[in-house]
Amino acid sequence: MGQAGGPTAVTNASLFGFVEEALLGCEVYGVINGLQGLAEDRLVPLPASTVKRHRRMREMPGAWLGAGRWPTREEDFEGYAINLKNRGIRSLALIGGNGTMWACLRLEHAARRIGAELSVIGIPKTVDNDLAETDHAPGFGSAARFVATAVRDVSKDLESMRNFEAVRVLETMGRNVGWLAMSGGYLRKRPEDPPHLIYVPEREFVQDEFLKEVKETHEAYGYAVAVVSEGLQGRARSDPGDHVKSPLLGGVSRELAQLVSEELGLSARGELLGMVQRSYSLAVSQRDREEAWLLGGEAARLMRAGVSGVMLGLERRSSSRYEVKIRHVPLERVAGAERPFPEYWLRAPDALVPEEFREWLEPLVGEDLSAYPANLSEQETSW
Amino acid sequence: MGQAGGPTAVTNASLFGFVEEALLGCEVYGVINGLQGLAEDRLVPLPASTVKRHRRMREMPGAWLGAGRWPTREEDFEGYAINLKNRGIRSLALIGGNGTMWACLRLEHAARRIGAELSVIGIPKTVDNDLAETDHAPGFGSAARFVATAVRDVSKDLESMRNFEAVRVLETMGRNVGWLAMSGGYLRKRPEDPPHLIYVPEREFVQDEFLKEVKETHEAYGYAVAVVSEGLQGRARSDPGDHVKSPLLGGVSRELAQLVSEELGLSARGELLGMVQRSYSLAVSQRDREEAWLLGGEAARLMRAGVSGVMLGLERRSSSRYEVKIRHVPLERVAGAERPFPEYWLRAPDALVPEEFREWLEPLVGEDLSAYPANLSEQETSW
Repeated sequence: MGQAGGPTAVTNASLFGFVEEALLGCEVYGVINGLQGLAEDRLVPLPASTVKRHRRMREMPGAWLGAGRWPTREEDFEGYAINLKNRGIRSLALIGGNGTMWACLRLEHAARRIGAELSVIGIPKTVDNDLAETDHAPGFGSAARFVATAVRDVSKDLESMRNFEAVRVLETMGRNVGWLAMSGGYLRKRPEDPPHLIYVPEREFVQDEFLKEVKETHEAYGYAVAVVSEGLQGRARSDPGDHVKSPLLGGVSRELAQLVSEELGLSARGELLGMVQRSYSLAVSQRDREEAWLLGGEAARLMRAGVSGVMLGLERRSSSRYEVKIRHVPLERVAGAERPFPEYWLRAPDALVPEEFREWLEPLVGEDLSAYPANLSEQETSW
Repeated sequence: MGQAGGPTAVTNASLFGFVEEALLGCEVYGVINGLQGLAEDRLVPLPASTVKRHRRMREMPGAWLGAGRWPTREEDFEGYAINLKNRGIRSLALIGGNGTMWACLRLEHAARRIGAELSVIGIPKTVDNDLAETDHAPGFGSAARFVATAVRDVSKDLESMRNFEAVRVLETMGRNVGWLAMSGGYLRKRPEDPPHLIYVPEREFVQDEFLKEVKETHEAYGYAVAVVSEGLQGRARSDPGDHVKSPLLGGVSRELAQLVSEELGLSARGELLGMVQRSYSLAVSQRDREEAWLLGGEAARLMRAGVSGVMLGLERRSSSRYEVKIRHVPLERVAGAERPFPEYWLRAPDALVPEEFREWLEPLVGEDLSAYPANLSEQETSW
């Protein structure tokens, strides 16, 4: 069992879900720091006693075994497979995103080439929600819960301060996809509610239109909140195994706030919602955590049954009530593939946050969230 | 009733606590946007029906009446007093920080000069916790709860990613005081736990020492988390009524991260915890909200009793169990005064987060917070 890529608030639920199930019939080892641990043969035994003693770590954000990024080339995987073979390890589950699924596939092929028996299973994890062939992936629901509530609350704060600050540009994660940015509008109810504007990588970003929209919003409501994806500009689609070389993302919000100040003469603040959005324990969606746990356990069962070469995915069984079944997706179909925010939602007439998207998101972000009406103003004194 | 300055997650609890009590014997008006509303005579009636209909706004972050900053000079206050006198308003309560308390005092004096009967009461509010003459102020506990948990969670995330990212510099609010930055260490238990370093405005910041400490921490643990106050550098102490002219704060974390990258060659990320720390509804401390409510109600009772010229403060009655009583503090003693993080805690031998400070903070941040042990590593496999 290994964890790879950037962690989420529920990655460890998948880890413990897997390990506790796997221990029923196997000896289990943990790979330290994902692909790096495979490259350097750094594994630790995870006997039942250790797992039991640390069971509360399943609620800890981050990755208990260490995750992270590691530069890996196609030709490195045979070495990884040899390391595992030399230890007598027959199956590997990796928790990760589409880069990790690509690595799972390469590793399975490499093992076959060197004549090692190795079954490989991928457990999905991403806050960006860019994994193909699954309705959503663990980690996203909790991140979306944070983003939805943080955008609402920071907007309320700005609405109160609009005699001092005019514009806030809030930046979510989402390297190439707009799922999290769109989630920033989840608690919006009426056109005048913030966030007033959302910009995602799936739509072309036109600077002049952005400025025009901010200006009009500010004129209409006295303040403006825009949500943007970190991947808005540039959209450098690197190779899936190649995140390592790209610089730390983040910063488009500050650039845009500066643009607003300079071009519109409005006081503007750009803020990254930052690493807290993928790790914040107080914003975990319980359903997200449960699904992470379930997918971990299912991976262990599949492994014992000798299945290999699949990623687990989630599929909704019904559109009327929330119920999911677990799918087995061939790694080929997810490795390096991407899942943008759907075109049909982007084109929906209720534009900013399509009602269908809101309904889709509702069970994932969890309960006890409510929108608030507007601040009191002179216009409202006739109530 | 007016709200002034930057809002908090519980400012509206004070507002409703006040209004519901005041309505028992008075007609109540809301001042729109704090000092601006006083300057421009923008008031709205708050009859019981309106207040009842919007009662759930007491849990909303931000300021229901609008708050914000407004440039005010000594000579403006007579005009404010005349506006209130012309409306027949006899008492004013303002929720705010030390700048607001200064305005309350000036307004009371101005009213006396023009022969108006005006009693003025200040209700404390600050996330920085820099108000003098009170054990703490509403807003701080919730902000501290956010900071403590966010620092822990973002640190866990980094610990998982240390093969890719080495250093995070996390920036809290605190223009001139280090209360929130120190709260970032609340959930730290052992020397090896993050945050490893905390820098506050009360201590001289020496760049070379900072670099040395980051380097040593990284060598010891493979990663380093530093928490810094936004007011770390510059410490420009402007006049209390003069926040309006100062630029939006924030940014020292990015400067320091860049310094770490350049001087130590380590991958470093600077992140502002941002506006979410003073507004995040999911991190509200219930005790903080209750105290905000209670102080609002007490202000209304005092007002009906004809008291004027005081700010309400909180005083701990016992060091063994948490119990506070409400104090009446002459506005002179808080107007423009500041309350730094205490020197005796900064000098404590258990340095980074003094145990006494932790005990002081515990009842304020609320319950259900726990620290997590470290991530698993090869060294720990001998368990």
